[in-house]
Amino acid sequence: MKIYGDSKSGNCLKVKWTAEALGRPYAWIETDIMAGESRTDAFLAMNPAGQVPTVVLEDGRPLAQSNAIILHIAEGSHLVPEDAYDRGRMLEWMFWEQYSHEPYVAVARFQVKYLGKPVDELEPRIVERGGQALARMELALKDAPFLVGEAATLADVALVAYTRVAHEGGFSLDAYPAVKAWVARVEQALNIRD
Amino acid sequence: MKIYGDSKSGNCLKVKWTAEALGRPYAWIETDIMAGESRTDAFLAMNPAGQVPTVVLEDGRPLAQSNAIILHIAEGSHLVPEDAYDRGRMLEWMFWEQYSHEPYVAVARFQVKYLGKPVDELEPRIVERGGQALARMELALKDAPFLVGEAATLADVALVAYTRVAHEGGFSLDAYPAVKAWVARVEQALNIRD
Repeated sequence: MKIYGDSKSGNCLKVKWTAEALGRPYAWIETDIMAGESRTDAFLAMNPAGQVPTVVLEDGRPLAQSNAIILHIAEGSHLVPEDAYDRGRMLEWMFWEQYSHEPYVAVARFQVKYLGKPVDELEPRIVERGGQALARMELALKDAPFLVGEAATLADVALVAYTRVAHEGGFSLDAYPAVKAWVARVEQALNIRD
Repeated sequence: MKIYGDSKSGNCLKVKWTAEALGRPYAWIETDIMAGESRTDAFLAMNPAGQVPTVVLEDGRPLAQSNAIILHIAEGSHLVPEDAYDRGRMLEWMFWEQYSHEPYVAVARFQVKYLGKPVDELEPRIVERGGQALARMELALKDAPFLVGEAATLADVALVAYTRVAHEGGFSLDAYPAVKAWVARVEQALNIRD
């Protein structure tokens, strides 16, 4: 499997961590989005949306969208619950991540860390909604070790990607102690270091 | 199953259409988001994110996020491909819908139709990205009857919800003839009238 990813992007790292947790071999092809490398004709032929990560599976067929990719490669593994309801809850967190967390927590980080915007010049809407997302996670993790059940699932993979670097966008996890403890737990469970 | 939904919301209608296509009985509980009915204590106890749709399954357990709900209730049905790669592509479209289509096409419609904003006062970013989303669908549907394979899947359910009413936010489908023909095809396949 080839992973076309940008190391700056948590969405791309989700795919790397999942492949590594499952012992699945892959080649990482660094794709610099800020240099337009996801908008070349060759890239758009794989993924017309021009987004990383995009993988090319062993049989040559492409697949995009970080959460769709990790669902595809982890199907049947310990990272996907067998119970139908737990599976549904895992999917609920994964869609929520892309709609209600990433557009604020990841976007703030991108603007601050890579575009050099001062934290106090972020759009108030981004700051407010990012805080709401982290508060919602705090509520869920106050009495639970992981987002779904007693072990790490793809919900944790998806949410940890930008939560663990939320401070780079101005969101201190000191205000969310259960989230902070969960980040360490997920990093250990998935052997995440980078 | 109880569906807490707002009839104005395509995300909520996805759940209704899927339940009907599968002959699954449900009670619809109209939940007016503009009147704050998804922010009451009783609602937040079901879904701390305060978002519709939220369903309460037959066993009393809640589930949220439109695409997670329809994946849960349609598992094993004709709306979910058996082939693993086709399944992955379906998921790709569903995550793309929530990240790259709904925040522009649905948000434009909400602002124009429900908040009364003139189309020419929409944020340029919303108009541009909504157009890009429709153009990407046009490319995919130029030579294919449905988004994945030869029959309707949950990818079509998810994408048709706001595409069929895109004109209400100022996006004319006349510029996207393959998308327009696909909308009619999906409406017929799923018996969508409202």
